[in-house]
Amino acid sequence: MPRARQLLISRESLKTSATRTVIQHVLSRLREIGIADIFGVPGDFAFPVNDAICLEPGMRWVGCCNELNATYAADGYARIKGVGAVCTTYGVGELSALAGIAGAYAEHLPLFHLVGMPNISVQAGRALMHHTLGNGEFDLFYRMTQPVVCSQAILTPQSVVFETERLIAEALYHRRPVYMAFPADMANQPVLGAQQAPSSPPRSDPASLAGAVDAILAALAPARTACVLPGILLARTGRRAAMQAVIDASNLPFATMFMDKSVLEEQQLAYVGMYDGALMNNDVRAFVENCDRVLTVGTLMSDFNTGAFTAQLEAKRVINISHHHTRVDGKSYANVELGDLLTALALRLPKRDWSRPAATAAEAPAGNGPDLITAAALYPRWANFLKPNDILIAETGTASMGLGFAKMPLGASFHNQTLWGSIGWATPASFGAAIAAPGRRVVLVTGEGAHQLTAQELCQFGRLGLRPVVFVLNNSGYLIERLLCKDPAIAYNDVAPWHYTELPRALGCDGWFTARVTTCGELDQALATAGEAGTGVYIEVVTDPYAASSLAMKLHDSMKTLYKS
Amino acid sequence: MPRARQLLISRESLKTSATRTVIQHVLSRLREIGIADIFGVPGDFAFPVNDAICLEPGMRWVGCCNELNATYAADGYARIKGVGAVCTTYGVGELSALAGIAGAYAEHLPLFHLVGMPNISVQAGRALMHHTLGNGEFDLFYRMTQPVVCSQAILTPQSVVFETERLIAEALYHRRPVYMAFPADMANQPVLGAQQAPSSPPRSDPASLAGAVDAILAALAPARTACVLPGILLARTGRRAAMQAVIDASNLPFATMFMDKSVLEEQQLAYVGMYDGALMNNDVRAFVENCDRVLTVGTLMSDFNTGAFTAQLEAKRVINISHHHTRVDGKSYANVELGDLLTALALRLPKRDWSRPAATAAEAPAGNGPDLITAAALYPRWANFLKPNDILIAETGTASMGLGFAKMPLGASFHNQTLWGSIGWATPASFGAAIAAPGRRVVLVTGEGAHQLTAQELCQFGRLGLRPVVFVLNNSGYLIERLLCKDPAIAYNDVAPWHYTELPRALGCDGWFTARVTTCGELDQALATAGEAGTGVYIEVVTDPYAASSLAMKLHDSMKTLYKS
Repeated sequence: MPRARQLLISRESLKTSATRTVIQHVLSRLREIGIADIFGVPGDFAFPVNDAICLEPGMRWVGCCNELNATYAADGYARIKGVGAVCTTYGVGELSALAGIAGAYAEHLPLFHLVGMPNISVQAGRALMHHTLGNGEFDLFYRMTQPVVCSQAILTPQSVVFETERLIAEALYHRRPVYMAFPADMANQPVLGAQQAPSSPPRSDPASLAGAVDAILAALAPARTACVLPGILLARTGRRAAMQAVIDASNLPFATMFMDKSVLEEQQLAYVGMYDGALMNNDVRAFVENCDRVLTVGTLMSDFNTGAFTAQLEAKRVINISHHHTRVDGKSYANVELGDLLTALALRLPKRDWSRPAATAAEAPAGNGPDLITAAALYPRWANFLKPNDILIAETGTASMGLGFAKMPLGASFHNQTLWGSIGWATPASFGAAIAAPGRRVVLVTGEGAHQLTAQELCQFGRLGLRPVVFVLNNSGYLIERLLCKDPAIAYNDVAPWHYTELPRALGCDGWFTARVTTCGELDQALATAGEAGTGVYIEVVTDPYAASSLAMKLHDSMKTLYKS
Repeated sequence: MPRARQLLISRESLKTSATRTVIQHVLSRLREIGIADIFGVPGDFAFPVNDAICLEPGMRWVGCCNELNATYAADGYARIKGVGAVCTTYGVGELSALAGIAGAYAEHLPLFHLVGMPNISVQAGRALMHHTLGNGEFDLFYRMTQPVVCSQAILTPQSVVFETERLIAEALYHRRPVYMAFPADMANQPVLGAQQAPSSPPRSDPASLAGAVDAILAALAPARTACVLPGILLARTGRRAAMQAVIDASNLPFATMFMDKSVLEEQQLAYVGMYDGALMNNDVRAFVENCDRVLTVGTLMSDFNTGAFTAQLEAKRVINISHHHTRVDGKSYANVELGDLLTALALRLPKRDWSRPAATAAEAPAGNGPDLITAAALYPRWANFLKPNDILIAETGTASMGLGFAKMPLGASFHNQTLWGSIGWATPASFGAAIAAPGRRVVLVTGEGAHQLTAQELCQFGRLGLRPVVFVLNNSGYLIERLLCKDPAIAYNDVAPWHYTELPRALGCDGWFTARVTTCGELDQALATAGEAGTGVYIEVVTDPYAASSLAMKLHDSMKTLYKS
């Protein structure tokens, strides 16, 4: 009987070996965790990987113009689907993707970076191949990527089964990118070795979890006032519903910081507004900072999340709930999983009549008809344009600083690369989001300076028949830089003057609605048409070079002080 | 007397300290070695560097759309001027440039990469700043760049004088990029410490040099046949004239390999043609490989330089002259500088009546009038279009493979990224070349797939009133990949269909001559107009998806054999 059983296992593993290659094994596992589209640029060392992606059932190759754009697209996709993947070739391709991989690391997005390498024999022979530095060294790029991924491996027939499980587990545990390299002569070889069950999701230490829950309950019980700062990691880890259940059960109010915007539904009574330190919304600041207890849940107290470090949260009031540990009253609870903790809190927190500040009404749009488009005219109009379930991709810069304070409609989500802050991200990220959510409307808002970094990726919307709404803010250069540098008019803040509305058609986005608007009346008309267009939409909004949102002006004022000192 | 002298030195160093900042010192030294234009994208951590570039006398900030493009532009500039520089901001900017820096390393171009960093105090405090990974680590990007630069430093008031001299010396010794980082709070501080004389150029070891010269003379004396393979390092090190003097003095014939094309004037009797192993020009191959002696001078026997390793140079016949050492008959001569050796050879090599193969006539263009544009129609027409002193930037792919076998007019130069081979390089590199040589005509030839990676940089030509001639080969995808992969029609070889001729205008290149040509007659007409246009020119050449140059077809044939086996 034992012998027969062993035979059965051997036969099974033999079958696996004979029927599945290294790359096929990886792709089927990525498919199982939710990746149906892989963004990339092909290349000769990556052909076996490129081929396999095109041939894998349920998977699609999504070609991009260049590797950085492909990585940003995968980033946008992962913001919607939870995971994403990008495929590049050796050296030239993978290095071009690095800034995007680093962005995914900073912003906690588990991207799988699939890289095609030269044959093992070529590497061993130190051959002088193209796409190398000509020095016979083949591990340099592997090493260069190490600081911006949470794990990496070169996959062979012997290692692919266990390495794939390890890398998936690492990517999901840390919500960070991983790097998977495929030597061209290995990718199509049959897998050697038996299948392996996927790693279980991490479990909490029961005693530590119970301790953390008790400590939080004990800390909140005597508090007269309290609030939650729900963070972006809730979205990244798929715990938004668990967090909402805590809000519903406890009646706790919440505010959000910039990077965390829209992680919970803003159309609810519990939402008190955006908290940005002393820079904006003084009523929200006063409320949050005077609460007896503040629960930060998966947030990061970075410069742009704290109003340039003007947030003043007294350490002893903060209950810090992180991805894998919790800290209350100076005591750390390790190995406490965010989801487990939230589930327990939803069950055990008493519902109370927590106080909250009155909600402030949204500002009405300024200006009319022939009036020029000021910030006060523009941002409220953009806010009003948004519809339920929209995906808003807001580029780093003055535009996102304005939109970050708009109240999102039901089900709509706001996305911004707040920590990494690499301009150019938004245009390809909006393409990736559109691929991830073909049933939702994608709205891209970008400044022209940022748009110019990656604008060619617009062509993919046209190629695939997708219909985004794109707003390009033409304010004659890099406005946020004008506001932050010494001499606003210095040459480096200028950009080349494009005829933006001619761009979609040049890039093959035929039949789109395009408009260039310079007055409030033209903007109103364009917004009305855009809302009903049924095609892709591209609107160039022309403003004064210094028409800046409030937050941008606040940052400008703090810089002025700096330069005077 | 000694005391007075010491005082004098102190006063001098004090004066230096008071009048020049860290960044000003670096810029003035870069200016002295020939850099008048710095390409880049500004960013807040780099403002002090950006400001100083704009204000430095004799120096110009050349803004680009993104950092990779800026680096490629600096690469193109350095191919003309010998040195180049690119400026980026911390993290997001510098990582986006890495693939271009690696390309400059592979292709032996001394680029100075100036990077703005956060303040030292911010770094020491491990602050959670934008453009970081949010983990308080600030040296990661510095470490990531290490494999693709020959040296690097973080510049402070104390270190800037000696570090600048060291980095300049390293960049020029290795002809490789270097990395110079400027913490924002250090860049504008006055230099501390006295001026330092620039390092002297490296000198040869006299005995080693004499030994190498004697050995070469001894090796050539009994040879009945010999030839030179002059390499790209002659251009990189400014030794083209010294090499030409050797050819003139000795009457030795020469052939060139792909990466080395046009390093010596092709319009001379000594030139026997392109040597590409067994793939092309069988007469040149037979001559070179049967010579009793072959002098390789600053070449690299890489895959694309050797007809995919089909070159069969018998090791014992090869005299290998490198940048800093020479090897003859199994003996190495270290510390022999290329320039010193060439100067000595020009003086001592006897003039002989060396045999050479008869030159082959250029092929006449095929096709006429309504005929479609085949490879036989296209490449000879492009060759005929070239004029003396043109700078031809040929993108990696089928287009450069065809143009590489055209004979260049007097003074015209051919540029290709043969070793690194990163598609997308050519469009921004042609912009950099145009900045470096405003008096010469720049001709860019690129495939559409490669063009799409970096096409937005065209806008800079328009912005600065430059007038390149751009040819975009529209063959419905990545042709070289169709020829090299298993299934030519597989989806990843397709690219988005752009309306190419509308692109220059959308990007602000107003008034350019644009044309889309599909027949030989249209092509002839467009070439005639382009030659006289007096404006920027952008011609989309439409061919069959499989219209490939001979070399590309040879590579295709060798792949077919591979996939059948």
